[in-house]
Amino acid sequence: MEKPVKLILPEVNNPVFIEGYPGIGLVGHIAGNFLAKELGMDVIGYVESPFIPPMSIVLEGKPNPPLRFYGKENIMVAVADIYVPPTLVNEIAVELIRYLRGMDARKVISIGGIGIGLFKDRMEVWGLGARDELNRELEGIGVKILQYGSIMGMSGKLLWEASRNGLDAYVLLGETFGDRPDPLAAANVIEVLKKLAGIELSTEALLQEARAIEEQLRKMHRQMQEARQKAQKQYESIYL
Amino acid sequence: MEKPVKLILPEVNNPVFIEGYPGIGLVGHIAGNFLAKELGMDVIGYVESPFIPPMSIVLEGKPNPPLRFYGKENIMVAVADIYVPPTLVNEIAVELIRYLRGMDARKVISIGGIGIGLFKDRMEVWGLGARDELNRELEGIGVKILQYGSIMGMSGKLLWEASRNGLDAYVLLGETFGDRPDPLAAANVIEVLKKLAGIELSTEALLQEARAIEEQLRKMHRQMQEARQKAQKQYESIYL
Amino acid sequence: MEKPVKLILPEVNNPVFIEGYPGIGLVGHIAGNFLAKELGMDVIGYVESPFIPPMSIVLEGKPNPPLRFYGKENIMVAVADIYVPPTLVNEIAVELIRYLRGMDARKVISIGGIGIGLFKDRMEVWGLGARDELNRELEGIGVKILQYGSIMGMSGKLLWEASRNGLDAYVLLGETFGDRPDPLAAANVIEVLKKLAGIELSTEALLQEARAIEEQLRKMHRQMQEARQKAQKQYESIYL
Amino acid sequence: MEKPVKLILPEVNNPVFIEGYPGIGLVGHIAGNFLAKELGMDVIGYVESPFIPPMSIVLEGKPNPPLRFYGKENIMVAVADIYVPPTLVNEIAVELIRYLRGMDARKVISIGGIGIGLFKDRMEVWGLGARDELNRELEGIGVKILQYGSIMGMSGKLLWEASRNGLDAYVLLGETFGDRPDPLAAANVIEVLKKLAGIELSTEALLQEARAIEEQLRKMHRQMQEARQKAQKQYESIYL
Amino acid sequence: MEKPVKLILPEVNNPVFIEGYPGIGLVGHIAGNFLAKELGMDVIGYVESPFIPPMSIVLEGKPNPPLRFYGKENIMVAVADIYVPPTLVNEIAVELIRYLRGMDARKVISIGGIGIGLFKDRMEVWGLGARDELNRELEGIGVKILQYGSIMGMSGKLLWEASRNGLDAYVLLGETFGDRPDPLAAANVIEVLKKLAGIELSTEALLQEARAIEEQLRKMHRQMQEARQKAQKQYESIYL
Repeated sequence: MEKPVKLILPEVNNPVFIEGYPGIGLVGHIAGNFLAKELGMDVIGYVESPFIPPMSIVLEGKPNPPLRFYGKENIMVAVADIYVPPTLVNEIAVELIRYLRGMDARKVISIGGIGIGLFKDRMEVWGLGARDELNRELEGIGVKILQYGSIMGMSGKLLWEASRNGLDAYVLLGETFGDRPDPLAAANVIEVLKKLAGIELSTEALLQEARAIEEQLRKMHRQMQEARQKAQKQYESIYL
Repeated sequence: MEKPVKLILPEVNNPVFIEGYPGIGLVGHIAGNFLAKELGMDVIGYVESPFIPPMSIVLEGKPNPPLRFYGKENIMVAVADIYVPPTLVNEIAVELIRYLRGMDARKVISIGGIGIGLFKDRMEVWGLGARDELNRELEGIGVKILQYGSIMGMSGKLLWEASRNGLDAYVLLGETFGDRPDPLAAANVIEVLKKLAGIELSTEALLQEARAIEEQLRKMHRQMQEARQKAQKQYESIYL
Repeated sequence: MEKPVKLILPEVNNPVFIEGYPGIGLVGHIAGNFLAKELGMDVIGYVESPFIPPMSIVLEGKPNPPLRFYGKENIMVAVADIYVPPTLVNEIAVELIRYLRGMDARKVISIGGIGIGLFKDRMEVWGLGARDELNRELEGIGVKILQYGSIMGMSGKLLWEASRNGLDAYVLLGETFGDRPDPLAAANVIEVLKKLAGIELSTEALLQEARAIEEQLRKMHRQMQEARQKAQKQYESIYL
Repeated sequence: MEKPVKLILPEVNNPVFIEGYPGIGLVGHIAGNFLAKELGMDVIGYVESPFIPPMSIVLEGKPNPPLRFYGKENIMVAVADIYVPPTLVNEIAVELIRYLRGMDARKVISIGGIGIGLFKDRMEVWGLGARDELNRELEGIGVKILQYGSIMGMSGKLLWEASRNGLDAYVLLGETFGDRPDPLAAANVIEVLKKLAGIELSTEALLQEARAIEEQLRKMHRQMQEARQKAQKQYESIYL
Repeated sequence: MEKPVKLILPEVNNPVFIEGYPGIGLVGHIAGNFLAKELGMDVIGYVESPFIPPMSIVLEGKPNPPLRFYGKENIMVAVADIYVPPTLVNEIAVELIRYLRGMDARKVISIGGIGIGLFKDRMEVWGLGARDELNRELEGIGVKILQYGSIMGMSGKLLWEASRNGLDAYVLLGETFGDRPDPLAAANVIEVLKKLAGIELSTEALLQEARAIEEQLRKMHRQMQEARQKAQKQYESIYL
């Protein structure tokens, strides 16, 4: 393989491209995977590179690559199940922009979290567009505009690269405490995304999913403990 | 050498390719080497790379490369006697798939272990195929289908790469405690493999082998201790 | 991308090029950004490289790349919001000199700090030119000429590279304690720079800015503490 | 330099090539250098690479490269005075085999030690040939054939690479305790080598050399201590 | 830049090339810089590489590159003000030899120190030539010939590379304690160098320089302490 990174992607006309790589509170990662599932999207592509750890992600009894693209009609979602190192992020971003420009993308939307280290009754969604006009659009749908700061990782890189290539690029960052995965911040971001990308989607389903996942994690934890205790007892009954 | 990895392999028509690189419980490694020996296979190829440690593996008074391929008729087994780093796994996988596609491989089967951290009366074999149809085939021979999770290393990589190239790829993972080499998990995996690959092979021989190896390890350990104590005494009788 | 570094820059005839990469006391960084803002400069270019961390710097509600160039008429300012590793500094310097030679640059001025580890009533500005003649010019505007020592980083590299390419290169180093960001040292350097580059600019505005920034940092710190204490109280009122 | 490694070597027809790179007990290193000296060999070549530390090895008032080849008639000896990292070993081995094939080498013999962690009245020499026939040849001159295990480093690599290229390759490993340089193990290996390579050489000379070196090391150590004590006294007599 | 290292050097016919890179006791570094200054040499070239730290060395109010060449008539001196890593030393040495061969160099002389860990009334100068004949020449001017050992770094590399290219290469090593910069060892080496290279130069000037530098260092240290104490007092008088 000559290039460090290769994108395997079909042609999609005027796509709305949503990026949800893992970051603070796993907000982008949770929202991206939820979107893909809830909208009934298929895996339509993936990132190929010798520098991505060799592995299959198993979902619903099917193998998947760790960095993949979901798609349905002209909506595309990029997700990553692993941490992606900085240089690889840069190489992927450059290839992505080349692709999105070629497809004449309608919107490039990065989603993620912004750690605030406290809990509030109403957790806001912050955002930034590539141009003043896009900031006005974001304000119109209830997004607070980030004035100063830095946006790290794929979101920051895509925003800049899309911006200088004349694409309509946005970043949406849901406020989150910052020390745990946060499906509620993901829900908040998706509420904004629905308006920005013109997506129909029930947030209620996401909140239920969030509660269900939490409940299931607790249950799995309990069952695993019980199974271990049972095995421990059997083990002890043999030797003690 | 220009390429980081080169496969030295003969032409084999419609091979059934079995991969047993080292992983949890050394299940794949034990099963792969046992298959090669028990089926009377010859070394038919190997992996060449400046990034593989310089060494010869001595088996039955013959030098062997650490990453090699055994073969007999159309059955091929890939084994590795050393840990292979992630980037090298990726490079090898890409070359392997190129080869297997060219040979029109009938089946690509990765074998390994899945750590469960407990002992059960009946240790199961989990598996996954590249397509639903292959999952049904696995269920038909008593394999539990993995629904969610991740498969690391060569097994995960081969499954995905073979899958996207239209090859019939499978992963078989024997349940194992996870903290020690486990010949019994290897036996369980081979029992399934016999049905999947249409191989004739006595599991009894493997179990005996497992017991013999364990016995021999204990004996070697004992002899070594005795020899050291004897040498220690001679040494002391000279100086004390 | 084939080259490790690429400069995206417009044609600017006979530019006066000012470099303010971060270093001791952040003197160059503070002065460079202040110049860009106070003179109403626009971002006219940036450095592109897979080895620069992926990120957007958000300023006044706009995304920016971390290594960028500001410009207005024939004045150019290079700033970096991140630490740039040595090899990258070298690659950028080589490309910069190629550009500045092509544009027939009038002056290449690096600005930064020099740590002296003490406070004095009057903190001086030290400097060095590429030729004796330029040292005389610097002395004429109150700069003390550095006789022995070393100038590290982009400033040292640019001075030498510009010097051997026949460009009129200067380094200006404001005395600073060395353990904290120092806007006063930046003001001292800018006072000299005004004379050297023929720039009109109120130092008073910079000093106010320095005081305002410090005041604002104190206020933000106080507000954040209050918000945390408030949240803590709400949190405690629920559970205690 | 384009290639990572280049061999500078003259044409030698049907050489008997002996490799003595450093390893356990420095057995190969000691034996290789002894052979070169005792047989009155000249330096006929060396390994050139930017990855070999810059240095001259001074022997009998002459500069030498650290990885060099000695030769006399058709006998060649490869020695290294420094540790060679794995990837470099691989690159050198590939170039060596290319050379040895081109010269139609008669025998390729690697010599080294095998750590046994104990002392015995009779320390054996273990060995392995590229083919069964060569193992028989080794048994015929008193060598015990290694059945299972691994041979690390240049010896293991050369054995395998020579073997798959149809060259007559051998490894000879002298038993050694393993925690110190061992000239006696080197003597044992050379006794076998004399028969295998058809070399005339007095082992007695080697054993004397071994004793002389040890004696000299003790003497140097003593003199250095005396010199230091004397200097210490002079120093103290001035200041105390 | 395609090559890792590039030498910028003018044509010099039949040069006497002296190398004084930093090493034990900084003997080569001190002697090299002293020669350049005392003989009134100009900077005539330098080493260009992205792997050399970005910096200017300021000497007598002028910027200089850290790895540079001084020259006057056919005498050339190579100095480095920084530690040069091994691979870079190799690359520079190869380019240097190419240049020196092209210029038909008369003599290639490396100078440095040899640590002996003790003080003696008379510290000797050890040396080694590329051929026996050159060793005789060295003995004729009072140099003790090194019989066994190793010469690390640029000196060892140049000696070997020059030697195998048929150039008249020498190494001169002044005995030094080894734990501090040693101008006296530098003086001893220069005394030999005067005879070997046919240079006219007063050693007395060097010894004075050595004493002056030491005195100045003590004075600077004293002044800096006084200035700090004064600043400390002013600081305390404000706040206490």
